[in-house]
Amino acid sequence: MAEFDLIERIRSRAPSRADVVLGIGDDAAVVRVPADRELVICTDTLNAGVHFPLHTAPFDIGWKALAVNLSDLAAMGAQPAWCTLSLSIPGDDPVWLDSFLDGFLALAGQHAIALIGGDTTRGPLSIGVTVHGLLEPGRALRRSGAQLGDDIWVSCTLGDAAAALVLMGKADAGAIAGGDTNASPLAELRERLDRPQPRVALGLGLVGVAHAAIDISDGLWSDLGHVCKASGLGAVLEVDALPASPALALGFDTTARRTLQASGGDDYELCFTAPAGARAQIEAIAVQTGTPVTRIGRMVAGTQVAGVDADDAPWVPERTGWVHFSD
Amino acid sequence: MAEFDLIERIRSRAPSRADVVLGIGDDAAVVRVPADRELVICTDTLNAGVHFPLHTAPFDIGWKALAVNLSDLAAMGAQPAWCTLSLSIPGDDPVWLDSFLDGFLALAGQHAIALIGGDTTRGPLSIGVTVHGLLEPGRALRRSGAQLGDDIWVSCTLGDAAAALVLMGKADAGAIAGGDTNASPLAELRERLDRPQPRVALGLGLVGVAHAAIDISDGLWSDLGHVCKASGLGAVLEVDALPASPALALGFDTTARRTLQASGGDDYELCFTAPAGARAQIEAIAVQTGTPVTRIGRMVAGTQVAGVDADDAPWVPERTGWVHFSD
Repeated sequence: MAEFDLIERIRSRAPSRADVVLGIGDDAAVVRVPADRELVICTDTLNAGVHFPLHTAPFDIGWKALAVNLSDLAAMGAQPAWCTLSLSIPGDDPVWLDSFLDGFLALAGQHAIALIGGDTTRGPLSIGVTVHGLLEPGRALRRSGAQLGDDIWVSCTLGDAAAALVLMGKADAGAIAGGDTNASPLAELRERLDRPQPRVALGLGLVGVAHAAIDISDGLWSDLGHVCKASGLGAVLEVDALPASPALALGFDTTARRTLQASGGDDYELCFTAPAGARAQIEAIAVQTGTPVTRIGRMVAGTQVAGVDADDAPWVPERTGWVHFSD
Repeated sequence: MAEFDLIERIRSRAPSRADVVLGIGDDAAVVRVPADRELVICTDTLNAGVHFPLHTAPFDIGWKALAVNLSDLAAMGAQPAWCTLSLSIPGDDPVWLDSFLDGFLALAGQHAIALIGGDTTRGPLSIGVTVHGLLEPGRALRRSGAQLGDDIWVSCTLGDAAAALVLMGKADAGAIAGGDTNASPLAELRERLDRPQPRVALGLGLVGVAHAAIDISDGLWSDLGHVCKASGLGAVLEVDALPASPALALGFDTTARRTLQASGGDDYELCFTAPAGARAQIEAIAVQTGTPVTRIGRMVAGTQVAGVDADDAPWVPERTGWVHFSD
């Protein structure tokens, strides 16, 4: 396929929206931004063998490339609107491309986001996505908004994606012993690695309620550390409160589980802070958006993220950040 | 350098604007779009060894990565506003990064465009840029707007970037004989290849005057072909009217020169169509914006781009499109 055939193949399937004046096919796209909204922009690139294992199914690569970007919009409390796709692929494979688009567009459809442009180049497999969202002026959920005494919350469960990589032998297990491929259903963990669910509805619900939010791409300790730094505060986490999926709990002992939850990346859950008075409201938002949330700690004076176990003894993960594996 | 150090190095140098609510450093950037403007978005990725020779100076790589994107905004008649940068680099080299940023930010400064976000990944050298521009509603210069009888114009000169690649031995010379490295000053041609000047001011001036526009990244024949297809028309070009730089004219015979001008890519000049009644106005815009323009043909019935020489004999280039070279 020449570049133009590739683009035509993408264009013919790209979803649009009423606010798209000009989509794929000119030098640039043109869209209308409502006068009463701010524009939210972010971009993330996934490289094969760095951000996903080389043999990941093309459907999942397409899904994940959009999901990690929508997750950033979710962390701002923004409503997704439009995206562009820069696709670098090594060869001609229409079957691969169609399957990739199946995954990308399945998620795009769920969030009514239009694919308005992009480019295709020849090279090692790499997918760059830029997403655009909308929010009411001044309402962005920033990293810098956390306040002393805020509860710290996290959506769904933590550590599943990292657990999948450990069981697949793709991550440096390091201190993580106890990975039991017989006990732990790899398929469920792998689903979390390959098809993360951006928490867009939760993020939208938290606007005006949460003080700060971030999505967890590099690991809870590391990402909450960004909130601490931006807000000039510290955080104390109750490590036994960190939510674990049944699959994670089955396959890993307590130490390994805690390490995966504290430092495993690629889950794309939201971590947010909110005043204690908002607990009931947050529980209601969780129910309305179908996104479980768990209170895992609170913002304190200081600069660091600290952990305590059920006996109030300090707990520190053996590593605090997630280095994306390499195939 | 870890990813966060890289980002901090970029953030510390990134220019902002008054309409940037939140720049680099959160999950996403937030900007304000004026209520009386449409938003123009495009994205282009450059891969080392495909879109620029492997040993291109980092300053020039940074410059060109932004330039090719601004050129797309120019072709729409849009005013540049904000950009994001996705940088995939193979290793740690702060000197390389600073020089790359010198080039990127030099051009950004010329066009008062803010760098509001992006990401860095480890991988083969690849630079993805998304640019955002603004224009009055309904005023975009589309490919589809050309009308029967329109003049066809092009900015500055054509074929220089391709000539540089031929002289460097980086392009398949094919039919291009007569490349004379002694006669032709490679440095001048190389400057055109490495530091293309996006014709932003010209594009802005042409809003409301030109009927259609495109930037020439793949070669005149190929890119004007997109205008023909989108507008349902054909084009006749006077091949001896195609503007040549002194450096190109010195180093190549007529056949080689014509081929480079007709099919050489990477010049990032604007090709646009306009009614004959606008000639004086277009000449004035050219003077005001310091951008030479040349009338090179007209839009006719049909579907193809055709060439005629000074004797009105048909002329067809040996190739009509530009395939980016590979190192």
